[in-house]
Amino acid sequence: MSTIEDVAKLAGVSKTTVSRVLNNHPYVAENKKALVHKAMEELLYVPNSTAQRLRKQTTQTIAVLIPRISNPFFSKMVEVMENIAADNGLQLVVCQTMYDKKRELVYLDLVKTKQIDGVILASLENDWNEVNDYTNFAPIIFCNEYDDRAQVPTVRLNQFEGAYIGTKYLIDKGYNKIAKCRGNNLSGLVTDRQRGFYHALDEAGLPFSEEWTFTGVSLVEDGRRVLREIIEMENRPNAVFTGSDEVAAGIISEAGRLDVKIPDELAVMGFDDQQIAGLVTPGLTTIHQPVDQIGKRSMEVMIDLLHGKGRMDEQLTLLPLHLVERGSV
Amino acid sequence: MSTIEDVAKLAGVSKTTVSRVLNNHPYVAENKKALVHKAMEELLYVPNSTAQRLRKQTTQTIAVLIPRISNPFFSKMVEVMENIAADNGLQLVVCQTMYDKKRELVYLDLVKTKQIDGVILASLENDWNEVNDYTNFAPIIFCNEYDDRAQVPTVRLNQFEGAYIGTKYLIDKGYNKIAKCRGNNLSGLVTDRQRGFYHALDEAGLPFSEEWTFTGVSLVEDGRRVLREIIEMENRPNAVFTGSDEVAAGIISEAGRLDVKIPDELAVMGFDDQQIAGLVTPGLTTIHQPVDQIGKRSMEVMIDLLHGKGRMDEQLTLLPLHLVERGSV
Repeated sequence: MSTIEDVAKLAGVSKTTVSRVLNNHPYVAENKKALVHKAMEELLYVPNSTAQRLRKQTTQTIAVLIPRISNPFFSKMVEVMENIAADNGLQLVVCQTMYDKKRELVYLDLVKTKQIDGVILASLENDWNEVNDYTNFAPIIFCNEYDDRAQVPTVRLNQFEGAYIGTKYLIDKGYNKIAKCRGNNLSGLVTDRQRGFYHALDEAGLPFSEEWTFTGVSLVEDGRRVLREIIEMENRPNAVFTGSDEVAAGIISEAGRLDVKIPDELAVMGFDDQQIAGLVTPGLTTIHQPVDQIGKRSMEVMIDLLHGKGRMDEQLTLLPLHLVERGSV
Repeated sequence: MSTIEDVAKLAGVSKTTVSRVLNNHPYVAENKKALVHKAMEELLYVPNSTAQRLRKQTTQTIAVLIPRISNPFFSKMVEVMENIAADNGLQLVVCQTMYDKKRELVYLDLVKTKQIDGVILASLENDWNEVNDYTNFAPIIFCNEYDDRAQVPTVRLNQFEGAYIGTKYLIDKGYNKIAKCRGNNLSGLVTDRQRGFYHALDEAGLPFSEEWTFTGVSLVEDGRRVLREIIEMENRPNAVFTGSDEVAAGIISEAGRLDVKIPDELAVMGFDDQQIAGLVTPGLTTIHQPVDQIGKRSMEVMIDLLHGKGRMDEQLTLLPLHLVERGSV
């Protein structure tokens, strides 16, 4: 392969001049420019990767969209992603939507202004129709979250199965009045979990009371509130499928404070298997999400796309979940 | 002030052509280029701020160096920083050193290659002498961590006082054999905490056994190990100053598992007041660090520096700590 020196020699100009021509420097005489271009063509000269990167204006920067970094599920995911990014010379920009639609679009605009090379969507506040256009500007993939209409690579967990095995476990242990918590949005992840939950109830012929659905529940404090609401009910559930270890930890902590016996008076099923699950008393029985694996796999898929090795269509990586028994059920 | 339209009109070319000349686009005829340059000079035309930003090659990107994002102290700090960055149109790159000196320097190199505009050091693995040179390339400030030799803006807590009030509280409650944990490095933060701890012991005329110092201790699992080592000791401490809520939570959880009574057999003092402190049983008595405030103030200082409003010398913001009583002492 020919070098910049070869080009300079053949064109009869300095290396600096060749470099200026490559970088479209304004002050190069037209005749010299022509000589350099002619030499480059004759030598089939290809600029090196650094120069190409500069010309192509890539930033070596990936954005990951999450609701908030202080949720331990997402901080663990970002830890894994950033480690792999760093090993590959990439920077990771953390973008917290804070559950805000407008803010999500401001982050996505970074692909239009070429400030980032790709986006990993680990949360989605807007409808996919609002987001789809951005895929024309840079690789966008889903991690954990998903939408059936999106024709983009997706690395996710089998949420239907996760909710199903968690609910079935409660039923098999003899609980027959099972409450359910969820956040505010209704993404693919949330609706699949709902389907799994109802499927297990239907199979067992168990009733479900709308009174036992708690929405807008995602923080420890929300869990405390749920426990207080449950103990005020006339028709009290005897178990709760929380969909979140943080919510479950809030329920267990508040139960300890108000002397409600877990699991005798209320069984609590978490979701995630965060560190907190092993630290509350009783320990939290929960659905283990392999957050390391989805973080790792997502970043690998993104890196492949940036290197032109991956496919931009809706290839799916589906990872399994399993139940971890502790003391809360 | 003249506009791009004025330039186009005077030069007798289209706005697109002017824009191409400004961006050194390769396919502009030389005569048109000359006309545009002449018009720009005549009109004293100054490109708008976006163009200027491109020319100055600022990235609107700040890097924050932390040991690892999955430590709740740092994830909360980054949450606050990123919110303020986003409000100011800045991106935040998360750089996890994972306690590795080489990796820290790779991140700092980003200021040399102009890939970031500034660095917030919330951890420091290398000696300050290794890092000082980087301050020639971009604003670097300390947040939480610090070094007395560094002539850079620093936002930090009074760690001496924090360790002193925590240790004195243990002494005032009647504990007279107090163990201590710390991580591996010996930064300004760590040595100040040591000084505060020993100062409280000295004041009370209490002895300290080297056997009761646990080093390389920073995770929940390390805390579990500390508890197991303590109960094997012939001369057992009756209290432990952990310097970390995660370590303290590990000690409390392991104590529950091995039926060691907290605080009767061992009092446990945390540090941070993370969410976990309110969720373990018994609740963790700890030193509250105002992580929101140091995160917020640090990002404000950085933004001032980027806007040329701050001072680059060693201005210090020192925030107070206070003790939160729960059940572990």
